[in-house]
Amino acid sequence: MSSHPLDPLSAAEITHISSSIKEKSPGKSLHFKVISINEPPKHLLRKYLIAERNGGSTSHLPRLASALYYHRGTSDMFLVTINLSENSVEQIKLLESHFHGQADVDEILEMRDACLKHPQVIEAIKKYQLPDHLKVVCDTWPYGRDSEDHHPRYVQCYLFAEGEHPGSNHYDMPLPFSPVLDMTTKELVDIIRLPTGPGSELKHDSVYVPHPAREYHHALQSGPARTDLKSLTVHQPQGVSFSVDGYLVRWQKWRFRLGFNWREGMVLHDVTYDGRELFHRLSLSEMFVPYGDPRMPYSRKSVFDVGDIGAGVAANNLALGCDCLGSIKYFSFVVSNSQGQPVDKPNAICMHEIDDGIGWKHTNTRTGAVSIVRSRVLVLQTIITVGNYEYIFMWHLDQAAGLHYKIQATGILSTAPIDPGVTVPFGTNVNEGVMAPFHQHVFSLRIDPCIDGSNNSFVEEDSVAMPWDESNPYGVGYVTKSQLLSKSGYSDSAPNRVHKIVNPSSINKTSGKPVAYAIHSPSKQMLLAHPNSWHGKRAKYAFHPFWVTAHKDDELYAAGDYTYQSHPDFTSDLAAWTAREDNTEDTDIVVWHSISLTHNPRTEDYPVMPCDTMTVSLKPSGFFEQNPALDVPQSTQKGNQSVLIEDKSLKNVLGGAESRGSGRDSKL
Amino acid sequence: MSSHPLDPLSAAEITHISSSIKEKSPGKSLHFKVISINEPPKHLLRKYLIAERNGGSTSHLPRLASALYYHRGTSDMFLVTINLSENSVEQIKLLESHFHGQADVDEILEMRDACLKHPQVIEAIKKYQLPDHLKVVCDTWPYGRDSEDHHPRYVQCYLFAEGEHPGSNHYDMPLPFSPVLDMTTKELVDIIRLPTGPGSELKHDSVYVPHPAREYHHALQSGPARTDLKSLTVHQPQGVSFSVDGYLVRWQKWRFRLGFNWREGMVLHDVTYDGRELFHRLSLSEMFVPYGDPRMPYSRKSVFDVGDIGAGVAANNLALGCDCLGSIKYFSFVVSNSQGQPVDKPNAICMHEIDDGIGWKHTNTRTGAVSIVRSRVLVLQTIITVGNYEYIFMWHLDQAAGLHYKIQATGILSTAPIDPGVTVPFGTNVNEGVMAPFHQHVFSLRIDPCIDGSNNSFVEEDSVAMPWDESNPYGVGYVTKSQLLSKSGYSDSAPNRVHKIVNPSSINKTSGKPVAYAIHSPSKQMLLAHPNSWHGKRAKYAFHPFWVTAHKDDELYAAGDYTYQSHPDFTSDLAAWTAREDNTEDTDIVVWHSISLTHNPRTEDYPVMPCDTMTVSLKPSGFFEQNPALDVPQSTQKGNQSVLIEDKSLKNVLGGAESRGSGRDSKL
Repeated sequence: MSSHPLDPLSAAEITHISSSIKEKSPGKSLHFKVISINEPPKHLLRKYLIAERNGGSTSHLPRLASALYYHRGTSDMFLVTINLSENSVEQIKLLESHFHGQADVDEILEMRDACLKHPQVIEAIKKYQLPDHLKVVCDTWPYGRDSEDHHPRYVQCYLFAEGEHPGSNHYDMPLPFSPVLDMTTKELVDIIRLPTGPGSELKHDSVYVPHPAREYHHALQSGPARTDLKSLTVHQPQGVSFSVDGYLVRWQKWRFRLGFNWREGMVLHDVTYDGRELFHRLSLSEMFVPYGDPRMPYSRKSVFDVGDIGAGVAANNLALGCDCLGSIKYFSFVVSNSQGQPVDKPNAICMHEIDDGIGWKHTNTRTGAVSIVRSRVLVLQTIITVGNYEYIFMWHLDQAAGLHYKIQATGILSTAPIDPGVTVPFGTNVNEGVMAPFHQHVFSLRIDPCIDGSNNSFVEEDSVAMPWDESNPYGVGYVTKSQLLSKSGYSDSAPNRVHKIVNPSSINKTSGKPVAYAIHSPSKQMLLAHPNSWHGKRAKYAFHPFWVTAHKDDELYAAGDYTYQSHPDFTSDLAAWTAREDNTEDTDIVVWHSISLTHNPRTEDYPVMPCDTMTVSLKPSGFFEQNPALDVPQSTQKGNQSVLIEDKSLKNVLGGAESRGSGRDSKL
Repeated sequence: MSSHPLDPLSAAEITHISSSIKEKSPGKSLHFKVISINEPPKHLLRKYLIAERNGGSTSHLPRLASALYYHRGTSDMFLVTINLSENSVEQIKLLESHFHGQADVDEILEMRDACLKHPQVIEAIKKYQLPDHLKVVCDTWPYGRDSEDHHPRYVQCYLFAEGEHPGSNHYDMPLPFSPVLDMTTKELVDIIRLPTGPGSELKHDSVYVPHPAREYHHALQSGPARTDLKSLTVHQPQGVSFSVDGYLVRWQKWRFRLGFNWREGMVLHDVTYDGRELFHRLSLSEMFVPYGDPRMPYSRKSVFDVGDIGAGVAANNLALGCDCLGSIKYFSFVVSNSQGQPVDKPNAICMHEIDDGIGWKHTNTRTGAVSIVRSRVLVLQTIITVGNYEYIFMWHLDQAAGLHYKIQATGILSTAPIDPGVTVPFGTNVNEGVMAPFHQHVFSLRIDPCIDGSNNSFVEEDSVAMPWDESNPYGVGYVTKSQLLSKSGYSDSAPNRVHKIVNPSSINKTSGKPVAYAIHSPSKQMLLAHPNSWHGKRAKYAFHPFWVTAHKDDELYAAGDYTYQSHPDFTSDLAAWTAREDNTEDTDIVVWHSISLTHNPRTEDYPVMPCDTMTVSLKPSGFFEQNPALDVPQSTQKGNQSVLIEDKSLKNVLGGAESRGSGRDSKL
């Protein structure tokens, strides 16, 4: 075993695991859901990582993996632990029947096919009277939940018509009926007529009405592309500033290990700056996307994009010069398919440096001395496609010891059919016959800190005006007020409230106060669905922006391990973990940050959405004794090779009244 | 007269104006404060600009300027209007005695000199027993206000000791006394002992205590600079994508005129996108910086950086490759000095393009077709130095018709002396003997819109859950709720509340709703000083993030025209204008956005502060019928010339336990 305990599984390991399990299941056809590395228990892993960082000898850690699979054609789902070091299958567990596996890629393709081939669906499409040049395609959605019923695993199929071009925008032609299929039996359960009027009333005999298309693909635009965008290229003539060995990355005093799995996608492990420990593990724990259209079946239109589908399996193969500009290092990974075979995820993460403007500057106006450094940032980027939507997830690491988690939403709005002339208060019309409903995206960023070590606390800090009294005689003084969360629980946002992860035992000699990292994130509206709605009960984490728990190894996913059609009564989730009221003071804690994007579509978001960006920053706040970017070299033209643009090169085609002159040569 | 009515004054014009005024003031020595262009009345200017844009004939607009000056050595301040077209001085007005001119550069140098040469100040410095190698320097601060008294124009001098190097950080050695001088007579008014303990108690006999220095200048660092930062350069081999004629700029469907004046610095005029009107004028109206230390004299430590000093006069001469990276166009301007002479402000604004990641992307997972464009942004940047602080102001214009106002704070914290072992709740100790008090920066961005024309309205829009009833049977629906501000007034922030400027007469055919631009800005804590404090009464605009008024030509500055030692009883400010309760529905309105940065210093912000960034975005919201960046060409490696970094080039000096391997080649 030469692999690091945190390295993702290799193709050979995946094949070995599925073969071993198949051997133990004679006569059964297996449908694999997951084959993934099991990270070692934190208390062992931390010792290993510390020894490794210090160049000491590392204890042997068994390399463990787990697999999740169905007996094909049944709802019997098994969870297996495999010890790769000892080449043994440690435990096979039949899971309780209310747990469902995520929708995997093979299964989705199978369900799309089964849907479109079903005679009743074919009949419904025929009745809709589409013209011959349009082809119907099927998007499968996790069924969600809108009742107590313990359904088998269902899939909700939304149908669209598309043209022949491979970039045709089928979301521009949503069909007004939606088949539901059983994922185990592949049988049709129902064809649901979609509401297309202002309310819930249904039109059972509607037929196709053409409208001018809105296409996003370049080949399908009616007008020409812009011709006045000149090329901009980024070069690093001396090479890049990072070094990489396997999944270990070093850059500008940062050191961390990159991880990747089918579910969370990109993970950062063991993040240190200048040799000091900051974060044990940083990951996208969950993402919930509920829609605000109250009508059936949209009322259950809600997806846990991480738990129901997986940010890792949905990762794009990133392309040089398109997804990433400059000098790019790619990381490729392997996931598994439903047969238990390895599937390459090439270029799933890209890493490169960008210039991010000025890092810091001061001019001494007495002497004219200018001190200036530019800000260089290391970008780790992964992009996922989940049906219509694209999400870009990035970590930006800066030279002043700040980490910035950037989420960008792009891709295509989820659309619904709407009758001519109708508008609804919970959606925006984006084309004739096409409505894009309001929705939210609530991400959960799991922050497993080790700020100068494992024992940390979580505090909220407000700026508050001092009372107007003898110590504040002019009424202008203000101070900060801190509130420690000594037991697991949640904390809400307030304008300027700063949440900090503190190490109470590590005192900053300069400030005299405990070292801390602060989480800066804009105050956002949380889940708008009612707390007692199924959305509310299944995604409790989405009601509060900050949560803190005592660390436990198996608590990784804010909405629970099995989110597909999850029922709150059987789900062990963040709300349940915090309800234990564990001690969270000066101990091994985990901080969970729910980041909410309320997306009420604009017409400008269609037919493809300009990136909408949210940023959460983890910044030192009294962690270092002084600016940690003080040793960044002064910025110089010699190194940066900028080009002065002379006026004469700019006097382009501005004719007539427009060329009236600059006033620079004017005389009185 | 060949100049455009909006062009800043030329050097010749400035000289002509001061000469004309001097001629009319025989026997008087004049101290000029301001010589600046007067923009034409909006109703005339709009006609002119529209005709100009449409290539029609433009009516003649007289070019007007104004000057503000003192009879030197007196407090008699005069405001003059000059008609440059007719070469006439139109009006000379003696202003009332409670109005004071801003602190100009010549005067500041004179006051510093007068302070340090005053025998009582020399005596106080002597008593403080500084070692010989340290030199005392003086920072002048606007006196502010902490009483009803009608003082003459005062200046508060804060003293510091510095070493010999031109980049020495004098803020690291604040002296514990502060002279106050009369700016008219240059006489010493008082030397105020600064509190250095936990409360207001004073030590009158303290002497210099050495401490290890914290220096920001590269030459003064004790350790070496980083050596592992490789060069990163940006190239535009085909040239830039913008065109410029004088102050008229065109880029990627954007067209606007750049303006500049001593007070607001950079101004954008007549901003259109794809021929449609968006904003008549965008400017930094004011910036207030009050400190949270409640003790005298810090209780009056507060500056209107725009009105008391001027963002234009404080603008840096930007340097190629340092302040700006890539292919850079600079704009230079001319301001005036106290003699009425022109003073060059070379390279006060830089303009260049940057790559800003991905613009939009979608992958059709059925066909594998990838549509992707990168986001190109036009950056207009100006940087000002106000004593210790630096502010970077940028407009980022994107290809999807968004404008982003970015404010970055950097430079050096304002510091105060503190006794060993003492901490205070309203400041952070950043070095031995050095405390950085909490403070706020409240900027006022003046937005004079013309969204599809002059008649606009201002609305606040919230996302609200629908009641759980028969139209929302699952409790998951939500809608938006709009509130129109039909009369001038203010509006507060709320999480996800979006403020929109709407043209009620221009209907978006796709959405069926009036076109709008939205203002996206994080919800922030506003002014913490008490509303009845002098800070509160002098900067009322700082209590609410959004204000709307009916447009009036002479209402440009949120805290009034004359902010220096301003008294609220004599100040016509934003609060007074909104109190008129003018109609602001479907008419010519101005929106004022107060952007608050509460800065409780970190140790990491010293001795120089990594840029802290705030962004306000003006984005189309149902203004266009579809994504306005749809015609941006597909991104290609051919144009972008990125470089693949191979693993073998990255295996640097990672020795020992660290090189344990990637797991990619591991075998079971």
